[in-house]
Amino acid sequence: MKKSIMSSTRLEAFSDAVIAIIITILVLEIKLEEIPTEENIWEIIIKLTPKFASYILSFVMLAIMWLNHHQIFHQIKRVDNTLLWLNTHLLFWMSVIPFGTDLVGEAPFLWHGSFFYALIFFMNTLAFTLLRNYAYKKGLFSDEVTTKVQKRITIKNGIALVTYLSAAFTSMISVYISFAIFMTVPIMYVIGGVQAEEVEE
Amino acid sequence: MKKSIMSSTRLEAFSDAVIAIIITILVLEIKLEEIPTEENIWEIIIKLTPKFASYILSFVMLAIMWLNHHQIFHQIKRVDNTLLWLNTHLLFWMSVIPFGTDLVGEAPFLWHGSFFYALIFFMNTLAFTLLRNYAYKKGLFSDEVTTKVQKRITIKNGIALVTYLSAAFTSMISVYISFAIFMTVPIMYVIGGVQAEEVEE
Amino acid sequence: MKKSIMSSTRLEAFSDAVIAIIITILVLEIKLEEIPTEENIWEIIIKLTPKFASYILSFVMLAIMWLNHHQIFHQIKRVDNTLLWLNTHLLFWMSVIPFGTDLVGEAPFLWHGSFFYALIFFMNTLAFTLLRNYAYKKGLFSDEVTTKVQKRITIKNGIALVTYLSAAFTSMISVYISFAIFMTVPIMYVIGGVQAEEVEE
Amino acid sequence: MKKSIMSSTRLEAFSDAVIAIIITILVLEIKLEEIPTEENIWEIIIKLTPKFASYILSFVMLAIMWLNHHQIFHQIKRVDNTLLWLNTHLLFWMSVIPFGTDLVGEAPFLWHGSFFYALIFFMNTLAFTLLRNYAYKKGLFSDEVTTKVQKRITIKNGIALVTYLSAAFTSMISVYISFAIFMTVPIMYVIGGVQAEEVEE
Repeated sequence: MKKSIMSSTRLEAFSDAVIAIIITILVLEIKLEEIPTEENIWEIIIKLTPKFASYILSFVMLAIMWLNHHQIFHQIKRVDNTLLWLNTHLLFWMSVIPFGTDLVGEAPFLWHGSFFYALIFFMNTLAFTLLRNYAYKKGLFSDEVTTKVQKRITIKNGIALVTYLSAAFTSMISVYISFAIFMTVPIMYVIGGVQAEEVEE
Repeated sequence: MKKSIMSSTRLEAFSDAVIAIIITILVLEIKLEEIPTEENIWEIIIKLTPKFASYILSFVMLAIMWLNHHQIFHQIKRVDNTLLWLNTHLLFWMSVIPFGTDLVGEAPFLWHGSFFYALIFFMNTLAFTLLRNYAYKKGLFSDEVTTKVQKRITIKNGIALVTYLSAAFTSMISVYISFAIFMTVPIMYVIGGVQAEEVEE
Repeated sequence: MKKSIMSSTRLEAFSDAVIAIIITILVLEIKLEEIPTEENIWEIIIKLTPKFASYILSFVMLAIMWLNHHQIFHQIKRVDNTLLWLNTHLLFWMSVIPFGTDLVGEAPFLWHGSFFYALIFFMNTLAFTLLRNYAYKKGLFSDEVTTKVQKRITIKNGIALVTYLSAAFTSMISVYISFAIFMTVPIMYVIGGVQAEEVEE
Repeated sequence: MKKSIMSSTRLEAFSDAVIAIIITILVLEIKLEEIPTEENIWEIIIKLTPKFASYILSFVMLAIMWLNHHQIFHQIKRVDNTLLWLNTHLLFWMSVIPFGTDLVGEAPFLWHGSFFYALIFFMNTLAFTLLRNYAYKKGLFSDEVTTKVQKRITIKNGIALVTYLSAAFTSMISVYISFAIFMTVPIMYVIGGVQAEEVEE
């Protein structure tokens, strides 16, 4: 068996730090543009509403992705050079989320915002899929990851990819429909929770 | 006994990173709006005073919350999907604190600032209470957490919830009275310190 | 022997995260105020020079403080409520450093900048001294910290306190003399290095 | 054998946190300068393209540097005062990367941007070389680092140093040629990957 170029816990710890920072700097986008006075304060707060909404959504999305990331790395037993770069690729797309959040929060009724927002999550899911498939094919996973588990997650990722892409292009017709389509993925993850096969002792 | 979907230390480490970032980015709100000169420097510094005051308060509040968070997770022996999301919910409300701090620091004499500030801490305490109650009812705590301990902390949280809500609504009458009411909670925590039953060896 | 309310490694890890964030967000102050063109780029870069200088100094100061913090907590065997708050107090003053750095970088020739900058480090050293003295008096240190070691470090801290205070008030006469006085402390620490008694195996 | 003033894992953990923050705050530079509307949104997005490009490059560069840093510290068995400061020196130059990224992203066709960008990476590589050479000469490495390994890495660093310096000065002739020269180093690292001698079990 080949050697690991880095322990998976170390790679996970570094990724965790990056994700923790991304999830927290999101809130930096929500700031007062002008000094509030008795007259304009409600106007200021109302104007911030779409920013808050996009912030909450991105916060939840990143929490889901953090959990998924943990689940993958908990099962990885060996890290090679390609896996390292597939993880960096994933972290890169995660780091673009604050920009997408800002865009959709600033211009919630322009289709462009919804388009890029959905596209960013498409790229994130793609990055997850590439990482998982590579790890599976190269035998970097522990035995817990059976063919059945891998197949099930591959299907799940496929559904998410199609959904995000649909949400992206539907935004040109209606940002509301785009949003409704988009939301099916996080709802699936939050309610569905973690599968029995993926738990750790 | 069911399995844990994640070790409580891992969840706590991630939460710790998020809290460390929140407590530190608070200071980013305090910045010079214009280049200081001999003439305007005192004016600039005096204008920053309410910002510094709100910054100190939020810093102490977050330190208390970090300690409380550690105490809860030190006693948790198993993490399930719901607990994970109750923790994410708590982190979300913590991450809103810098915004509230900015609002009250920019407009300290408007009741709206005090109102939202107190409301944010009401939501944080609620998030703590939901998390603790869920963990207690589902038996996720270790045996250290006796019914007596749980009851005492539930009462403490109840007092904090009522106090923050009172502070929020009193702000419409007077921001000074609101502030005085608000302060009773942190004072209770800082002076009261950590209870004997909650210590670790 | 009384119980520890938190392991010293946990408290140190949290403090380390906060210090790592502070040392890194310092650089956020150095940004381009306008879009650079062929004509103004050197002017822009020259204007940033005092900011860079104050940034380098604060970076080194924080590195020294991180090392000192590690040395103290490496020797602490028990954490009580007061120690926890003395550490929070220290982290608070550290978190004010980016503001002081910005102030002195924006207006390097105003005495106010040097005054507040030196004062912030006076408060940091005071916070270190209070923490160490409390730990020593309450017997929270391991046996490695002999009376001799404690006495030597107390003297070192005393020298730093007097130096920072002198630097603060000398700034009213000349920012150059103030700066020269200030620099004696970091030079003492960087060149002097870590004392033999303080090493770990 | 002399004592270590700090465990190498502790120093690495702190450095990791700093690198994680640097890699993540890079994205803060990419922000919407004005509120997007139907008319100006493509213009805004197109204007951000060079910023995105410089962001991607710096992200990859920092990922390479993080990996190199891990490789060095994985092999270090003892930390002394000088090594600690050589590491601080390295972290300082890393922390300047977001500024260089901003500069080159704001003015991609001015030679000054490419010049300073390449110079910053020259300084980073120099800092790595100084740290590694010191550790090797003082015998701080474990036995895994043979003379052969050390020689090979010294040559690799030498090539990078010459390349970055060439890229810096070529920028005065053409930013395109400068960029082409610069890119040879990250390509060498990403494709070359981690050498067999440097792996860990």
